[in-house]
Amino acid sequence: MSGVVITGCPRVPDEVRDRFDAFGVATVHEAQGRTGQLASSMRPIYPGARAVGTAVTVSMAPCDNWMLHVAAEQCRPGDIVVAAPTSPSDAGYFGELLATSLAARGVRGLVIEAGVRDVKELQAMGFPVWSRAINAQGAVKETLGSVNIPLVCAGQLVHPGDLIVADDDGVVVVPRLQAEIVAKTSAEREAREAVNRARLKAGELGLDIYAMREKLAAKGLVYRPFEAA
Amino acid sequence: MSGVVITGCPRVPDEVRDRFDAFGVATVHEAQGRTGQLASSMRPIYPGARAVGTAVTVSMAPCDNWMLHVAAEQCRPGDIVVAAPTSPSDAGYFGELLATSLAARGVRGLVIEAGVRDVKELQAMGFPVWSRAINAQGAVKETLGSVNIPLVCAGQLVHPGDLIVADDDGVVVVPRLQAEIVAKTSAEREAREAVNRARLKAGELGLDIYAMREKLAAKGLVYRPFEAA
Amino acid sequence: MSGVVITGCPRVPDEVRDRFDAFGVATVHEAQGRTGQLASSMRPIYPGARAVGTAVTVSMAPCDNWMLHVAAEQCRPGDIVVAAPTSPSDAGYFGELLATSLAARGVRGLVIEAGVRDVKELQAMGFPVWSRAINAQGAVKETLGSVNIPLVCAGQLVHPGDLIVADDDGVVVVPRLQAEIVAKTSAEREAREAVNRARLKAGELGLDIYAMREKLAAKGLVYRPFEAA
Amino acid sequence: MSGVVITGCPRVPDEVRDRFDAFGVATVHEAQGRTGQLASSMRPIYPGARAVGTAVTVSMAPCDNWMLHVAAEQCRPGDIVVAAPTSPSDAGYFGELLATSLAARGVRGLVIEAGVRDVKELQAMGFPVWSRAINAQGAVKETLGSVNIPLVCAGQLVHPGDLIVADDDGVVVVPRLQAEIVAKTSAEREAREAVNRARLKAGELGLDIYAMREKLAAKGLVYRPFEAA
Amino acid sequence: MSGVVITGCPRVPDEVRDRFDAFGVATVHEAQGRTGQLASSMRPIYPGARAVGTAVTVSMAPCDNWMLHVAAEQCRPGDIVVAAPTSPSDAGYFGELLATSLAARGVRGLVIEAGVRDVKELQAMGFPVWSRAINAQGAVKETLGSVNIPLVCAGQLVHPGDLIVADDDGVVVVPRLQAEIVAKTSAEREAREAVNRARLKAGELGLDIYAMREKLAAKGLVYRPFEAA
Amino acid sequence: MSGVVITGCPRVPDEVRDRFDAFGVATVHEAQGRTGQLASSMRPIYPGARAVGTAVTVSMAPCDNWMLHVAAEQCRPGDIVVAAPTSPSDAGYFGELLATSLAARGVRGLVIEAGVRDVKELQAMGFPVWSRAINAQGAVKETLGSVNIPLVCAGQLVHPGDLIVADDDGVVVVPRLQAEIVAKTSAEREAREAVNRARLKAGELGLDIYAMREKLAAKGLVYRPFEAA
Repeated sequence: MSGVVITGCPRVPDEVRDRFDAFGVATVHEAQGRTGQLASSMRPIYPGARAVGTAVTVSMAPCDNWMLHVAAEQCRPGDIVVAAPTSPSDAGYFGELLATSLAARGVRGLVIEAGVRDVKELQAMGFPVWSRAINAQGAVKETLGSVNIPLVCAGQLVHPGDLIVADDDGVVVVPRLQAEIVAKTSAEREAREAVNRARLKAGELGLDIYAMREKLAAKGLVYRPFEAA
Repeated sequence: MSGVVITGCPRVPDEVRDRFDAFGVATVHEAQGRTGQLASSMRPIYPGARAVGTAVTVSMAPCDNWMLHVAAEQCRPGDIVVAAPTSPSDAGYFGELLATSLAARGVRGLVIEAGVRDVKELQAMGFPVWSRAINAQGAVKETLGSVNIPLVCAGQLVHPGDLIVADDDGVVVVPRLQAEIVAKTSAEREAREAVNRARLKAGELGLDIYAMREKLAAKGLVYRPFEAA
Repeated sequence: MSGVVITGCPRVPDEVRDRFDAFGVATVHEAQGRTGQLASSMRPIYPGARAVGTAVTVSMAPCDNWMLHVAAEQCRPGDIVVAAPTSPSDAGYFGELLATSLAARGVRGLVIEAGVRDVKELQAMGFPVWSRAINAQGAVKETLGSVNIPLVCAGQLVHPGDLIVADDDGVVVVPRLQAEIVAKTSAEREAREAVNRARLKAGELGLDIYAMREKLAAKGLVYRPFEAA
Repeated sequence: MSGVVITGCPRVPDEVRDRFDAFGVATVHEAQGRTGQLASSMRPIYPGARAVGTAVTVSMAPCDNWMLHVAAEQCRPGDIVVAAPTSPSDAGYFGELLATSLAARGVRGLVIEAGVRDVKELQAMGFPVWSRAINAQGAVKETLGSVNIPLVCAGQLVHPGDLIVADDDGVVVVPRLQAEIVAKTSAEREAREAVNRARLKAGELGLDIYAMREKLAAKGLVYRPFEAA
Repeated sequence: MSGVVITGCPRVPDEVRDRFDAFGVATVHEAQGRTGQLASSMRPIYPGARAVGTAVTVSMAPCDNWMLHVAAEQCRPGDIVVAAPTSPSDAGYFGELLATSLAARGVRGLVIEAGVRDVKELQAMGFPVWSRAINAQGAVKETLGSVNIPLVCAGQLVHPGDLIVADDDGVVVVPRLQAEIVAKTSAEREAREAVNRARLKAGELGLDIYAMREKLAAKGLVYRPFEAA
Repeated sequence: MSGVVITGCPRVPDEVRDRFDAFGVATVHEAQGRTGQLASSMRPIYPGARAVGTAVTVSMAPCDNWMLHVAAEQCRPGDIVVAAPTSPSDAGYFGELLATSLAARGVRGLVIEAGVRDVKELQAMGFPVWSRAINAQGAVKETLGSVNIPLVCAGQLVHPGDLIVADDDGVVVVPRLQAEIVAKTSAEREAREAVNRARLKAGELGLDIYAMREKLAAKGLVYRPFEAA
């Protein structure tokens, strides 16, 4: 099953992709029914990192980064590389040279369920990475993997061409064919939240805004003064 | 035992609380006999975060943030919300909207043995959080918990009204009735350290300042030149 | 075996040590054959930390920082203290006062397989630390350990006088007698990478620069268009 | 606060304690409203371990088992020792000699948020232990702790004299003054479950026994044949 | 996307499924090209557990085991339930009562990326479970999930009707349509291994049996006597 | 530095090795001054495992078990193979076939800072293994490592020919040239413990046997009756 590169994968259209520039990871995750969030062990390697793009998936042998070079050729401007080893390992599969190559092809970032290195250089380049670890330990180039096959990365299934949104809160994947509708529901959610934010800021309570008091009472919530506790 | 909100809890008095503005977490922890430190897995979500306040405690069902809304109503200016799920889970229970609500009531921060989201927005608001994880994964509002009951959070027992100090070094809790004496011993410790700092900076050794040489010799410490090793 | 301080250990010569100022951790690790990298759990306590120096090793009883005071006397300008407890424990063994003492002796940083505290103060002083944890929990001074004996720290063997390079990517150790040759191979690697970086930046692929296509084909890599997948 | 031994603590009465011989950890935990379960990292050191007893609590310095000797004197037949270090450490604080001493005093087991050793000997003696780790690494006897103070162990607050039930499923604590009522609700729960067990064994579905179908439909659960998926 | 039960899913045919009774997890995993292995954190709750069956998948809200009751109705003899929460949580979702229900329907075991309880009873029943944790902590029944949708469990994608093999080595999934071919390659592998086993037992070296010496030399392996080291 | 096999390494003499048959891991670890214990994450793959032997060390590329075949040729009766990957990875490097080969050469067990598989078969063969994980995930044979070089395994430095003792409590290494003296101090410790065990069994307290009361009082230990607490 490994040793295959799928070429010419369809992506979320550029204009749909670009509508996600307006939304954070949490919003998108909620807007598609609280799904698609990668494990919270996936963290940006520097604060303020943010990327929106279409997935090029890479399945690698553990501690082997050969397929990242293979994947580079398959990337188009607006892509994000999503990579995972077939067995857990947090070595450093990626650094400044590979980032230079990807950036030259218009790639917007990397999501990797493993380790990366050259953090300072990547930050200076503005090439964002979300990873499980930062690790200078090098990788080899000995064993084949695959590019653009469906991939489980940090607990989520990612297909090539899916939409990826990543920021300080982590990484979320939106299936390609749902991207348009999720963009719409994300915008609606943002609008709703703007109203609630203003009310909360003014001192109104969520208990009242969201009409929770009755439901809480129905569940049996009781209030007791401290003296009687 | 769950489904209870204790109202009108006494707090550490404002003027005692404010004396802790001068002390870091490490100082307070030492000054009360090396107790009260929450587990080191509790980290600030952005660098430079710092808060001093009185605890409003929240016991939540796992992946359920309903009680944070209930707790908001119990908060007064100068409080810090201290929350933990009844079973470990690092989902994101808290974000920018809840922070807006708490900030509107004068709350100074959140300590949560779980996950939070909207990191960028929380930093922009200056609303500090100490948590085990950053995670966009949403929570539900289905099951009751309790507010202002004694709570074990990250390995420490916290009562409502206890004093919380949190900074880059983590979080420490000071029992309400001990806060005044701990403020005093913290100040004394700071004064002592100022003297020692000056001597260490001038090149004196801790071995001499703290008169350790004799004790070390008594325990059997030996010095051997490298050639003889 | 514990309770020994080895004095007068030889170090990597200053002029060899200073040649490493030009190299990052990843480069040095690769240049010595992908060895010497400490576990990726060893992280700088603030971003941008970097240090190059010669190791003074400290083996401590768990939760006991007495030997750090003993070690201070053995330090010379240009040293880095490398410390590990004999049994895992992430308490805070080190803070601002000890850092003041070490800085006064010209020490350039600390690598500790445990916890530290006073992060804000250490950053303000510019005293870098690489550790497994940040933790205000204090340590005692009751049990002897040893200074300048061979030490396993975060999975790597460190001898006194070995060269340490530490930056945002982690920590690498270079055995004392190999430092000169590793400086040379590091410089050669940097030169090679400069050429490749320019080609990658210009849009050439690693597949072509490193002549990988034939090897990949020999291993059996196949390309299939999406429609046929 | 450390360095104190509280003597003569009241315990759950023997006849109440003995009623828990009939109940597993899961039953007791449910019967007191899903509270009191220690963290799932607390595992028996051999299969089939089970103990019911009254808590003697021990707060120890990390990697220091001195207070276990102090605690032995405070134990009575029917007790279980519940111990935790003041800072996390998984060294081996307890082995066959201490177990011999405790067994001679009628102690029924140990619950320790740390490590133990001599697993084979403890199993041969029939002295059960629940711990976070098995570790031969020895402890020192240098620093005071306390006996029979309230203790947070593996995330739960334990008072001296509380009831402890431990088996293959883990460890649960029942507050002393609630033990009698929890014994009663545990028995009721067991009776209810016996009825349901028989119905489930006969092939009835939980959906019907617990009348879940209507509630599920009200929440919106839909059924779709595979062909239409 | 949640709140859906897919009914009438096709399974690997019984006679194909039964051919896997002859193979261990490691053999099957190798026979399908080293794929399909669930994370090694998935362990049997008692030694000697083994099960072969067809997957009924269950996506649950965290700490909510409602959907396991819903799934029971969808099970047929020869099935194995494969369950995962939508956000990580190791509470105890499953115990003896649910096992009684599943066993009554001919279910052969449970694979769950979470916790279970009643270990002793499950072992006595001979109902095997592979899980991340053993935990008495109870779950609620408040939030919908889904049954028989594609599910990521412990890092692997599982479809309803896929083949599951689980034993002391862990859990492997075989996609439904590949089961027949994997049964064949598993048998071939076993046959090959029987020959090699006999030769190895007779003292021949793998170096010779697998003709490794030349390849090792080509890669540059050198032998040096200890004296010259 | 990798790609080297050191041949003809000296071992702890057979008659010294055999004297350790009488001692458990904890005894040996204490007898050499509480050193040499491997990390507690190293667990036997089945209960009751025990082995005493001389180390053949193996440094492997991550997820690559080629060097285990190379090491087999270097083994003599009475050896224990001690292996670690150069970067952490818990895949299954070892199973029944390799065990058959090693057993045919008189090897007594394996200590590996990684994963193994075929647990049931290894237990049936009586070939004990101490590992970090059980994992069916296979390894490749692509990259050289080294045999019989000094190796850090699970936090301890192991040289070829060192003595290894492993049992239910974990693994301890004794440096080759210290083995004779450690055998002697182990026997002395066992003799001392026999006396204390008898006294403890008879109900004497450690407080009295080890004359701790005075020291505890000197440190400030106080006793308070419960009523006064």
